[in-house]
Amino acid sequence: MKSKWRSIGALLAGGLLGLTALTSDGATADDTQTTAAASPIYGVTIPKGYREWQMIAPAAEAAPLDELRVVLGNETAIKAIRNATLPFPDGTILVKLAYRKKQSDAFAPATVPGQPTTVQVMVKDAKRYASTGGWGFGRFINGVPVDQAQHETCFACHAARVKNRDYVFTRFAP
Amino acid sequence: MKSKWRSIGALLAGGLLGLTALTSDGATADDTQTTAAASPIYGVTIPKGYREWQMIAPAAEAAPLDELRVVLGNETAIKAIRNATLPFPDGTILVKLAYRKKQSDAFAPATVPGQPTTVQVMVKDAKRYASTGGWGFGRFINGVPVDQAQHETCFACHAARVKNRDYVFTRFAP
Repeated sequence: MKSKWRSIGALLAGGLLGLTALTSDGATADDTQTTAAASPIYGVTIPKGYREWQMIAPAAEAAPLDELRVVLGNETAIKAIRNATLPFPDGTILVKLAYRKKQSDAFAPATVPGQPTTVQVMVKDAKRYASTGGWGFGRFINGVPVDQAQHETCFACHAARVKNRDYVFTRFAP
Repeated sequence: MKSKWRSIGALLAGGLLGLTALTSDGATADDTQTTAAASPIYGVTIPKGYREWQMIAPAAEAAPLDELRVVLGNETAIKAIRNATLPFPDGTILVKLAYRKKQSDAFAPATVPGQPTTVQVMVKDAKRYASTGGWGFGRFINGVPVDQAQHETCFACHAARVKNRDYVFTRFAP
């Protein structure tokens, strides 16, 4: 029963979060929910239209992850990270897209995106997420949030490694 | 004398090209020239505002290049590549940003962008670039086009490897 209520709470929270996020990008309330699937603990959803957002930086992960990644950001995120504004303002949303590395079939020295693996979202709301540095986290596989245990690891790692950058690993690539 | 005229021709052509490119993205003529530096042979310039364009896909290059890359596209490019439209329509512009790979200072298994290396541009104009598959090429280091000899290698490589994809290596990463 408790977990059922938590789950409903997360769904509601996810919806509200989406609304806040989209309003800051000028979209309508109707656009806010691509999915009812919100992350455990944080209630973060995959923001509508994120694939059209501006690029912050690419990255690669060595084995065993063996991924190519790109972080995109909404307008609030881009403005802040280009101006090196810290902490990031409320409404900032960062989305990391990850793909399995694949050798290019056209040019051997190149590695290109294979199967998409995860979509990872960070949402800034200093009040709502006060206990986790102001950030809410969501990690999704095929649009479905991973379990609570995995979400419990997000903040600890960010806090241990990049607290001095407002908990954000990615830097803007010019 | 001949090369002087070619060079002036390239500059003029670059200006016109910029104009065409930007018009297709709805910008004003005033926005068209970030730089007078146009590529040899093709007269391709770095398009104004390209860093705000949508992301098509990341990639990585093995040593000796040892780079992380991201390809961005203007609206015409994004629409075409998302819909798998081939050949790409006139006005398509693809921009590849390349960075030296660097180990993340915050998370050892991650590779992140170091020093920017090149910006590479492909512009589609079937009539103007009829002899090179409809594409004009520009390769820039610190905003300055590389020499003619390097530009002479662009089309041959694209033609040998990806003629069946309208000479474009990059595929859209979802």
